[in-house]
Amino acid sequence: MSQIVGVIGGGQLARMMIPAAVNLGIPIRVLAEKPGEPAALAVTAYGSHLDLEAVLAFAATVDVVTFDHEHVPQAILRELVARGVNVQPGPDALRFAQNKLEMRQRLADLGIPVPDWARIENVAQLADFLADHGGKAVLKTATGGYDGKGVRIVRDADEAADWLEAGEPLLVEELVEFRRELAQLVARRPGGELALWPVVESVQRDGVCAEVIAPAPGSAGRVADVAADIATTVAEALGVTGVLAVELFETTDDRLLVNELAMRPHNTGHWSLDGSTTSQFEQHLRAVLDLPLGATGCRDEWSVMVNVLGGPTTATIADRYPAAFADQSTVKFHFYDKTPRPGRKVGHVNAGGDDLDDVVYRARAAAAFFDA
Amino acid sequence: MSQIVGVIGGGQLARMMIPAAVNLGIPIRVLAEKPGEPAALAVTAYGSHLDLEAVLAFAATVDVVTFDHEHVPQAILRELVARGVNVQPGPDALRFAQNKLEMRQRLADLGIPVPDWARIENVAQLADFLADHGGKAVLKTATGGYDGKGVRIVRDADEAADWLEAGEPLLVEELVEFRRELAQLVARRPGGELALWPVVESVQRDGVCAEVIAPAPGSAGRVADVAADIATTVAEALGVTGVLAVELFETTDDRLLVNELAMRPHNTGHWSLDGSTTSQFEQHLRAVLDLPLGATGCRDEWSVMVNVLGGPTTATIADRYPAAFADQSTVKFHFYDKTPRPGRKVGHVNAGGDDLDDVVYRARAAAAFFDA
Repeated sequence: MSQIVGVIGGGQLARMMIPAAVNLGIPIRVLAEKPGEPAALAVTAYGSHLDLEAVLAFAATVDVVTFDHEHVPQAILRELVARGVNVQPGPDALRFAQNKLEMRQRLADLGIPVPDWARIENVAQLADFLADHGGKAVLKTATGGYDGKGVRIVRDADEAADWLEAGEPLLVEELVEFRRELAQLVARRPGGELALWPVVESVQRDGVCAEVIAPAPGSAGRVADVAADIATTVAEALGVTGVLAVELFETTDDRLLVNELAMRPHNTGHWSLDGSTTSQFEQHLRAVLDLPLGATGCRDEWSVMVNVLGGPTTATIADRYPAAFADQSTVKFHFYDKTPRPGRKVGHVNAGGDDLDDVVYRARAAAAFFDA
Repeated sequence: MSQIVGVIGGGQLARMMIPAAVNLGIPIRVLAEKPGEPAALAVTAYGSHLDLEAVLAFAATVDVVTFDHEHVPQAILRELVARGVNVQPGPDALRFAQNKLEMRQRLADLGIPVPDWARIENVAQLADFLADHGGKAVLKTATGGYDGKGVRIVRDADEAADWLEAGEPLLVEELVEFRRELAQLVARRPGGELALWPVVESVQRDGVCAEVIAPAPGSAGRVADVAADIATTVAEALGVTGVLAVELFETTDDRLLVNELAMRPHNTGHWSLDGSTTSQFEQHLRAVLDLPLGATGCRDEWSVMVNVLGGPTTATIADRYPAAFADQSTVKFHFYDKTPRPGRKVGHVNAGGDDLDDVVYRARAAAAFFDA
């Protein structure tokens, strides 16, 4: 019997680890907040990731603890480690995915290219930053943001007032002029082995990943090399285990700047479920168990993922299966068993092939069946 | 919410439906005999497939009933149908997978090429058949055989005496001189849509499938066409729904003869988990739900599956993961969470690529890590 993987959080990332676990014969258990979450099939305990006792009790039933999200507080993570629980990735790595100010400082210390940034604690500091950066900037809460939440573009220092009232320092960054967004995913074992997928292009809409093209068009050569170097440096320096996603800006003057880090399987890696020899979910399981990593080559010349956001409002998702499946027989459908709401990620589709235009067309056509 | 698929039987075929169900957002429930079976993750009820009340109670919790095996008695299947349960495939189709005498008669009536055969009820009838067929033949029990069980080669009519004592008629067949064994898998929806995978070569050892090569080398053209025609005729004439596997002999004089039928995902289709756009498990779910079928093209020029039979006796399967994964990073591993026993199917591996020799080598090398 393999070691048992325990996942804190019952969302779609935990859900998508289930098929990989079934294939590899790895037992998987999930701590969810409540019944009916996407990973329900593997749930063995209910409780909040903020509840030390619940997390400890769950951890006692598994051999390694990993995560569906990055929201488990440092205090709980450190208590787990103090009690001998095998936590992957560990708190020393996760803190940089949990706090954007710490992340920016650490990356800057490592000499990794990032947007101009500053830590601000009052309106005057923001005003100074705006004055130095053409009167506009991106303001981010240090913690708790995701999918465009906790991020706003500001042109006046007073726009920070409400967030500053919380008493926490904020991160302000230059508004980068970028050509496109990229993402470089890497998996790392505790023993140090690394495996990188090709760098991908991530098309965002309203701060949320909408489409991914793998590999990023035109990236072969310099862009791929620089992205891989950045991700490798980050993974090694921060001691990341499991999957690390490095979101990057490709600037209009041809630099790659790190935007965000995620230390878990990531939306920009969902294409790998059907497009890579080893999916990010299988690789995450291998990595957190310190097993040798799988090959990360592309199975198709081009892979395209399109998110299903919102979902139908006039029918259930399954009501759309007959039309969607009939129209797009080569597309792979992935649904998360979530109730559709505007903007909510309820699934994604993957397409692959030799002709990028055709692959994009098929993926978009398949996803469109699940629009409102 | 999609309709709920209920699977009777908790073996590896039910297990391998789970990833497909998770991906498609299809709820899946399994009736197992006892805890700890391969499909345990999706088990919602325990009971025997021979227990009408247990099967009826399980059927009441799902929208369509399908199968991990073909051992549910006709009486129970017919009672389910009489009570309005959606059973796929239905009893009128399944009887031909359950009883080899009925299967032979039906295929003969359809004009499908089969080995010479006879129904025998006594030693004298077998003696006559042997006299007409060079003094040797294959004797099969009409029901209950699988993986080489219920099959023996006879050269003397008295060798049938013990089986005849059971009072059931037996099937006797000519000992076909074949070049190799092939398998043609097809999926069919209740509405009639069909999808065929390429015909594959199945290498048997001791009556058990050991390796599969997809597509069967040299099959393009006539062999593929004839195999597809046979499977299409059988699926349509018998009203099969879900996956149908037609096992074939390719004779030394270039005929294709039907050996066996299976009405469920089949070992000769396991390559499709990694080698086809739509795996046999996903296709089976689509078919029994009467959803449009997925594309069945090959993802690699060659796919090779090698069964893991027996498994290690000096360690657990998982103890072998580090060495196997490190050595064969491109191979996909599938384990069923079964305790190793000599000859028992405990998993399989899939490899794919352009060079058949290399693909065979990698698959065999990966599987060999799990030998005794």
